[in-house]
Amino acid sequence: MSEAAQTLEGWYALHDFRSVDWTAWRLATEQERATALDELHGFLAQWAEVEAQKNGSTAVYSIVGQKADFMIMHLRETLEELNELETAFNKTTFASFTYPVHSYVSIVELSNYMAQPGSDPLENPEIVARLKPILPKWKHICFYPMNKRRDGNDNWYMLSMDDRKTMMRSHGMIGRKYAGKVKQIITGSVGFDNWEWGVTLFSDDALQFKKLIYEMRFDEVSARFADFGDFYVGNFLDNEKFAHLLKI
Amino acid sequence: MSEAAQTLEGWYALHDFRSVDWTAWRLATEQERATALDELHGFLAQWAEVEAQKNGSTAVYSIVGQKADFMIMHLRETLEELNELETAFNKTTFASFTYPVHSYVSIVELSNYMAQPGSDPLENPEIVARLKPILPKWKHICFYPMNKRRDGNDNWYMLSMDDRKTMMRSHGMIGRKYAGKVKQIITGSVGFDNWEWGVTLFSDDALQFKKLIYEMRFDEVSARFADFGDFYVGNFLDNEKFAHLLKI
Amino acid sequence: MSEAAQTLEGWYALHDFRSVDWTAWRLATEQERATALDELHGFLAQWAEVEAQKNGSTAVYSIVGQKADFMIMHLRETLEELNELETAFNKTTFASFTYPVHSYVSIVELSNYMAQPGSDPLENPEIVARLKPILPKWKHICFYPMNKRRDGNDNWYMLSMDDRKTMMRSHGMIGRKYAGKVKQIITGSVGFDNWEWGVTLFSDDALQFKKLIYEMRFDEVSARFADFGDFYVGNFLDNEKFAHLLKI
Amino acid sequence: MSEAAQTLEGWYALHDFRSVDWTAWRLATEQERATALDELHGFLAQWAEVEAQKNGSTAVYSIVGQKADFMIMHLRETLEELNELETAFNKTTFASFTYPVHSYVSIVELSNYMAQPGSDPLENPEIVARLKPILPKWKHICFYPMNKRRDGNDNWYMLSMDDRKTMMRSHGMIGRKYAGKVKQIITGSVGFDNWEWGVTLFSDDALQFKKLIYEMRFDEVSARFADFGDFYVGNFLDNEKFAHLLKI
Amino acid sequence: MSEAAQTLEGWYALHDFRSVDWTAWRLATEQERATALDELHGFLAQWAEVEAQKNGSTAVYSIVGQKADFMIMHLRETLEELNELETAFNKTTFASFTYPVHSYVSIVELSNYMAQPGSDPLENPEIVARLKPILPKWKHICFYPMNKRRDGNDNWYMLSMDDRKTMMRSHGMIGRKYAGKVKQIITGSVGFDNWEWGVTLFSDDALQFKKLIYEMRFDEVSARFADFGDFYVGNFLDNEKFAHLLKI
Repeated sequence: MSEAAQTLEGWYALHDFRSVDWTAWRLATEQERATALDELHGFLAQWAEVEAQKNGSTAVYSIVGQKADFMIMHLRETLEELNELETAFNKTTFASFTYPVHSYVSIVELSNYMAQPGSDPLENPEIVARLKPILPKWKHICFYPMNKRRDGNDNWYMLSMDDRKTMMRSHGMIGRKYAGKVKQIITGSVGFDNWEWGVTLFSDDALQFKKLIYEMRFDEVSARFADFGDFYVGNFLDNEKFAHLLKI
Repeated sequence: MSEAAQTLEGWYALHDFRSVDWTAWRLATEQERATALDELHGFLAQWAEVEAQKNGSTAVYSIVGQKADFMIMHLRETLEELNELETAFNKTTFASFTYPVHSYVSIVELSNYMAQPGSDPLENPEIVARLKPILPKWKHICFYPMNKRRDGNDNWYMLSMDDRKTMMRSHGMIGRKYAGKVKQIITGSVGFDNWEWGVTLFSDDALQFKKLIYEMRFDEVSARFADFGDFYVGNFLDNEKFAHLLKI
Repeated sequence: MSEAAQTLEGWYALHDFRSVDWTAWRLATEQERATALDELHGFLAQWAEVEAQKNGSTAVYSIVGQKADFMIMHLRETLEELNELETAFNKTTFASFTYPVHSYVSIVELSNYMAQPGSDPLENPEIVARLKPILPKWKHICFYPMNKRRDGNDNWYMLSMDDRKTMMRSHGMIGRKYAGKVKQIITGSVGFDNWEWGVTLFSDDALQFKKLIYEMRFDEVSARFADFGDFYVGNFLDNEKFAHLLKI
Repeated sequence: MSEAAQTLEGWYALHDFRSVDWTAWRLATEQERATALDELHGFLAQWAEVEAQKNGSTAVYSIVGQKADFMIMHLRETLEELNELETAFNKTTFASFTYPVHSYVSIVELSNYMAQPGSDPLENPEIVARLKPILPKWKHICFYPMNKRRDGNDNWYMLSMDDRKTMMRSHGMIGRKYAGKVKQIITGSVGFDNWEWGVTLFSDDALQFKKLIYEMRFDEVSARFADFGDFYVGNFLDNEKFAHLLKI
Repeated sequence: MSEAAQTLEGWYALHDFRSVDWTAWRLATEQERATALDELHGFLAQWAEVEAQKNGSTAVYSIVGQKADFMIMHLRETLEELNELETAFNKTTFASFTYPVHSYVSIVELSNYMAQPGSDPLENPEIVARLKPILPKWKHICFYPMNKRRDGNDNWYMLSMDDRKTMMRSHGMIGRKYAGKVKQIITGSVGFDNWEWGVTLFSDDALQFKKLIYEMRFDEVSARFADFGDFYVGNFLDNEKFAHLLKI
């Protein structure tokens, strides 16, 4: 039996992908759309307030292509709060003009492959900040889920802790080359959703997502041991841009 | 030919996942919603009575994310009773405001990998209680189906009984570390549904699901021999919370 | 090139899985439901008459869980008759209250792995009866499709006839232990549907499905060489029970 | 790099699978149905005329089971003609009573594994007739798509031309045993649709499809190197039978 | 760790596949259809203007078979522009007569496997033209996504740069044989969509797609290392042909 990496967890995460029923939205009366937008902006203000209080964080991005029209990423202290957010949204008039297309449930996670022995990570304010992060409002987002592979000779979970540590270090060094260009939030989803991790990347230059992920793919930990789910890419929506997206 | 583990079976299980048609629910009249809620609370009372009589057990949980809005888990003596429950529910006004999204049919199962030779397990009241359990009403639930892998050299069903026994023991020892924190109900579904087993976990701290499953994944029986289906996670709904979820 | 097993074929089979549109059914007038039920009972009477004439056989079972509400299994002499049955059903008012969810096309098959050399199987009345069987009306049904695997070293179709014969004999011996408890009808579907075989099991005790299939899974022919599709389990519906299922 | 087999191509093929919206069709007025059937019979006459002129060929078959109600197979000189056929059909009232369920785009193909060196196949009238065939109107049809496998040691495209030729010859010899009983049209779909080939079989005895494909499955070229998609089986629909299928 | 090929990127690409709701379109009034077509032709004119200004490029093709009715391929400088195009289209009356069926997000890419050492590719006007290409308006299009395989011994990302370079050269030599007959645009989608690359081919003879892809499949880089997604094939739609497609 191989030793599991210890992990630290912070806020729970819900990635909520939705599309707009454009025909219904276009055919609604000005009044109906105004009501719906009022509800939406009420939520946006509420979520901003939660973030200002550091009780969570929310970011809204459009999604390019037909997979979704927008994605709301919420971080909160508990699963119950995420559930409440979903349900409150579902009960609105605005929600009736949209339909759910995908979601992902996970929790912000740091693994200890790079931990310093002897130190208590939770006394490190930088680590605490990474466990309960305020989501960047950078121009672009990229989201995808992934597993570590368990297939014949390519079985991550049968490797020794040392081998995994060595590979994760090399992996981390690629990531470091993109510091300042790409910000990454890893969320663990074992037991919460269909893949083992979610990866959320932020950048002001979407091309950096491709550069980073492509470079990592030649790294043994990705090349031999990573299985990927669907990829979503999008553009930041502040309140004004969200209003523009919905303007008829 | 390898020897099959003997199994003991108890109550049949139906995991019934449903979502709410929120637009129809919101647009219904107060009267329609009241009628529908009366039906729902009638069922909840009926199921509670069955449980009080120890003729079965039922628990209701919300599901976080878009996979479902809620899941009703029923345990009953026969497949016919589970079928009756489904059909009675489908005929209600309340059901018309929801739609089915997933279900799982299985039977509570104990395998004999850890059996004591010479003892009759069905004379052991603890074992009988585990075969016909009253479902915990803990704060969180986690459900996923799984297979034992049959792939090239990683073929569980070609291993000797001894090898399987040794691995299952090691597996069980991880589980024991979570005693009191996570309660687990294994249901067998060979011949009943698309996977070989269903795993239902209960905990007051959802993070323990992730800790437990992640730790087990490094265990050879999971690392080499487990294939997993979709994961669902949710929050306990007592009658009051269910009413709150549906309140417009 | 490996030698194919010779097969004997009997009646063609259609497994027709349907669900009820419960909202439409509940909201229909008494009159509409009465008309629809008349049509249904007309068909049931017709199918019973075909069976009485030994020109085919039909059995109706509910399905537990959300995969379907009921399944009608038809055996007939020709594909044209099965097609006629489908189309006639589709044209009714009753069919409009249901929707198709799955079907399977195959033909009753006996393989010669256990044939006696020198005998003509079609002169054996027992074999003829097995090729054109009257479907049991036992309390439970289990249906699943399967392939023989062709994957790397686990390639059934590259084995010698002798190896396959030996394995099938061992497989058959497990089946024999369930004689009287489980009745099995194998239908071949190479060229007719997406898997190579359909397996339909009948029993008065649904647990025997699990016991039988689980025990067989440790047999090399299943462990290394079987790939399985979706499993369906259900309860026998005689006319009265079918009426009860549909009673509003 | 391995040598590709040279191929000869003839007419483009569209397999167009559709189902009937039986409720809408039943509830339509006699007048609406008459209009729709007039359109349909207009098309059938047009397609027959194209075939009489040897500018293409069309055959219509029902499909048994829920995968589709009928399939129209068109052969035409160009992709543009196939596209025109589709669009013209989609614009009719009749099409509104049906819905598309599957399609396949390919081109009639002969590969040169069995070519005689030194001869020009296009001067052989028999070969030309096979590239632009008039579709048989035999009682049954069977359609499935397939790939040659590229998986570890079972990689067709890494074999030498000689090895492939030897295996294809053995494969062809099985086919020849069914001459007169089964007629086969191979269409290539590399670059046109999701699989590499489509196989369309015709027979007056549907059981011969099963016999032929099952026997071939033990041949190394199928056993080790074939991956199959969904199988469709159906019954020939001349104009009268098509009218009968649709008769309310 | 293996060295990643350096890549050059140009315009972002959106392949937008849509189908027509033919029943709604047929039943619309002449006036509604005229309004919708005005919107469509307004967009077509706008996109042509962007292309004339060399700020992007757009091409419209029909798709043969039921996968889609048409595909609009847009190239633009930024992801935001592609998102704007989508949203503007979705808000129209014309869009309400169509529904989205598939999309693909990527970026025009040249890899440096064939780069000349010492030269700056971005000073080469031919390379710049290939990064920001005006889409050909040839008679046929073929689109498919692909991955380089990572499976056991067939793991592209574990090969040395030299091995990959040798294989890509041989691959390129096949492509060169089709110069003038097939034009190819490779777009990278790592981090943007579900596959690693999109391949868009243009030709005046659709058969050349099949010839090219089939020949390449025997090349080791395809045979051992390519996984393919769905294939789409279609015919060029200039404004007149698009109007004809939609003419009722």
